[in-house]
Amino acid sequence: MKFFHVKTVSETLRIINEQFQPCRPPVELPLIEVCGMVLAEDVISDEQVPHFSRSTVDGFAVCAKDTFGASDSLPAFLDITGRIEMGMAADTALHEGQAQAIPTGGMIPAGADSVVMIEHVEEVGEMLNVFRQVAPGENIVRAGDDVERGELVMACGHRLRPQDLGVLSAIGRTSVRVHPRPIVGILSTGDEIVPSEKKELAPGEVRDINSVTIGAAARQCGATVLYGGIVKDDYDTFAKRASELFHKVDFLILSGGSSVGTRDYTVQVMQSLGDPGVLVHGVATKPGKPTILSKAGEKPVMGLPGHPVSAMIMFQLFAVPILERLQGLRPAQTDLRLSAKIARNVPSAVGRTDYIRVKLEEREDGLWAVPVFGKSGLISTLVESEGIVEIAANKEGIVEGESVKVHLFKS
Amino acid sequence: MKFFHVKTVSETLRIINEQFQPCRPPVELPLIEVCGMVLAEDVISDEQVPHFSRSTVDGFAVCAKDTFGASDSLPAFLDITGRIEMGMAADTALHEGQAQAIPTGGMIPAGADSVVMIEHVEEVGEMLNVFRQVAPGENIVRAGDDVERGELVMACGHRLRPQDLGVLSAIGRTSVRVHPRPIVGILSTGDEIVPSEKKELAPGEVRDINSVTIGAAARQCGATVLYGGIVKDDYDTFAKRASELFHKVDFLILSGGSSVGTRDYTVQVMQSLGDPGVLVHGVATKPGKPTILSKAGEKPVMGLPGHPVSAMIMFQLFAVPILERLQGLRPAQTDLRLSAKIARNVPSAVGRTDYIRVKLEEREDGLWAVPVFGKSGLISTLVESEGIVEIAANKEGIVEGESVKVHLFKS
Repeated sequence: MKFFHVKTVSETLRIINEQFQPCRPPVELPLIEVCGMVLAEDVISDEQVPHFSRSTVDGFAVCAKDTFGASDSLPAFLDITGRIEMGMAADTALHEGQAQAIPTGGMIPAGADSVVMIEHVEEVGEMLNVFRQVAPGENIVRAGDDVERGELVMACGHRLRPQDLGVLSAIGRTSVRVHPRPIVGILSTGDEIVPSEKKELAPGEVRDINSVTIGAAARQCGATVLYGGIVKDDYDTFAKRASELFHKVDFLILSGGSSVGTRDYTVQVMQSLGDPGVLVHGVATKPGKPTILSKAGEKPVMGLPGHPVSAMIMFQLFAVPILERLQGLRPAQTDLRLSAKIARNVPSAVGRTDYIRVKLEEREDGLWAVPVFGKSGLISTLVESEGIVEIAANKEGIVEGESVKVHLFKS
Repeated sequence: MKFFHVKTVSETLRIINEQFQPCRPPVELPLIEVCGMVLAEDVISDEQVPHFSRSTVDGFAVCAKDTFGASDSLPAFLDITGRIEMGMAADTALHEGQAQAIPTGGMIPAGADSVVMIEHVEEVGEMLNVFRQVAPGENIVRAGDDVERGELVMACGHRLRPQDLGVLSAIGRTSVRVHPRPIVGILSTGDEIVPSEKKELAPGEVRDINSVTIGAAARQCGATVLYGGIVKDDYDTFAKRASELFHKVDFLILSGGSSVGTRDYTVQVMQSLGDPGVLVHGVATKPGKPTILSKAGEKPVMGLPGHPVSAMIMFQLFAVPILERLQGLRPAQTDLRLSAKIARNVPSAVGRTDYIRVKLEEREDGLWAVPVFGKSGLISTLVESEGIVEIAANKEGIVEGESVKVHLFKS
């Protein structure tokens, strides 16, 4: 077996970005199903939006030059030659000296180049007094102003939000090519682990919390989850169950028992699933050091620590970007973490990236991140926490009042 | 009909917080279904977590006082009287002068009060040399250290995240009482609006974008959506269709056509659905001024502007807190918006709260919010935008470099 050095967080993230990509072909799905999924095509519009020139106000469509110089004391006089209705074609052309009533959103008739607002006119029978001049194009959105035919509307690798579906809908798309949701398999290991449904625990037994937390977190990231259950610390059974689950999923997560034996088995099992095998064996973080990452064929396999808190933080740190790569999402260009001031000194060791849980408090001088302490592995601290703060590997700690970035937990 | 003054944003939010609350009784659901839902009970633990005292390291369980004074040159000598296995009860009590091998997570035997790490001992047959002293309690998590029996673990009104499900699971809960997902009905109105599936648009027609965007946004907030389709600008039909949908949902959203006629009908229809009727008729914002909020019985009814951009921003601003109240979520105590510097001057009128769309750029001196401009109602601007920035009603605008809070769009 190869010997592995512990990797830094940035080395591990670089490996993730280099090694993983969508492992299944894109699928075409109806718009109503794709919110949160990632585009697998560049969307080019076949249509203009709006597809006709429309008024942005209630008023009268006119030729702008007929209104030049018009004022309260010297109005322009126009003939009212029609009334445009919502949703109908404006099929009577407008000539100089004429006006047609038009509602907000109504279609601009041929010959008109602007709209005078209803507040600036007076109707006198079939005549219109115009008290304010308008410029050509005023109060009009022209055909194609929003989207031109042939325009790139959205690029491949974009995660679809509600407003993006609106734009796709506006250009006449009813379905779109997206990367399928990755299927994540979760297998818990450890002789002490029992199903979370078990009511009365025998001494020494611990419920399988990681399947619950990691499963829900994976679904939050757009994955479908296949629960593999629990396997005892026996190499043959573990290898067999892992292999069965591996073949049904796109990304296998092994949640490790915390004993020495289980940790050893996890690496052997990961190697047994296929080449190239283990890429990262241990990460220089606290918590989460025993995290293992491997690749079998094109699929990622990750070994998370058994402690629920470490498992959750390592999932946020490494499994989330793996899921993003499997979904074809472009890596983020911008750091969208919240800024806050840390509420007390936190020591840390140089060479190790520390993650501390924090809750947030709004004070008069801004947002403060208050560390939530507790013995390692205390899961109740996660309920109080709203996010995590990173103490970089090159720092000996952070001092009270120092500005930190908070990675918020999803809710 | 009553006469309404335009309300400010904070007046409208106060009305929302005062008027709306969960309108259906809580339901008991399995943990696997409740991620993102809101707790409708105070969760008190029936159990201790961990439910037995466990070791946090691999080593030997001992009586701490047997190790006092132990060092490399003067080790303590103990008898090895057992080996504790993972997941099994430690049923042999430990006496003075004895040690039992124990893995990380293993159960501490009666009589032991601490664990010496494996690195600090040497096994010689059935004897153990201990080279380091330990204090009572060292390397142990005691029963109940994480959660005590009778402790309040999570309070009513808390939105359940993956880690919260983990804690519920740890205390033996397999189901929990939550507020049911609110059912949101969406009805689009306007003579010009046609179904978004329509391929070839006739002149004057516009696809129903708001059902798509508002429907997806409501689902992101945990709602179930009932699509009511499109109704023409005819009072009787509009009132009948609105009433039918209203009786099937917890929250009715009317997405208004933009013509004057439709706006008038919307208010009449909202009044016709029941008392107390319209609460807010117009909000001092740009965009979104024609937003209307009413209450019929205990249910909220909201009239959104027809422009997709205005509708989306007004949904974020007012419909999201309504959905939070309907789900029983406690109002947020902390402002979790991102800070950024605005990248150019943006003028605004005093007395009106303006919302501008921004994209974010990471620069050397921090995060910048770059306004995304475009004519009102241009939906393509929403694709580029990552969030919205508020210009408060008491400001005449914001100047380049000024710090602003960004409300991120969900993705």
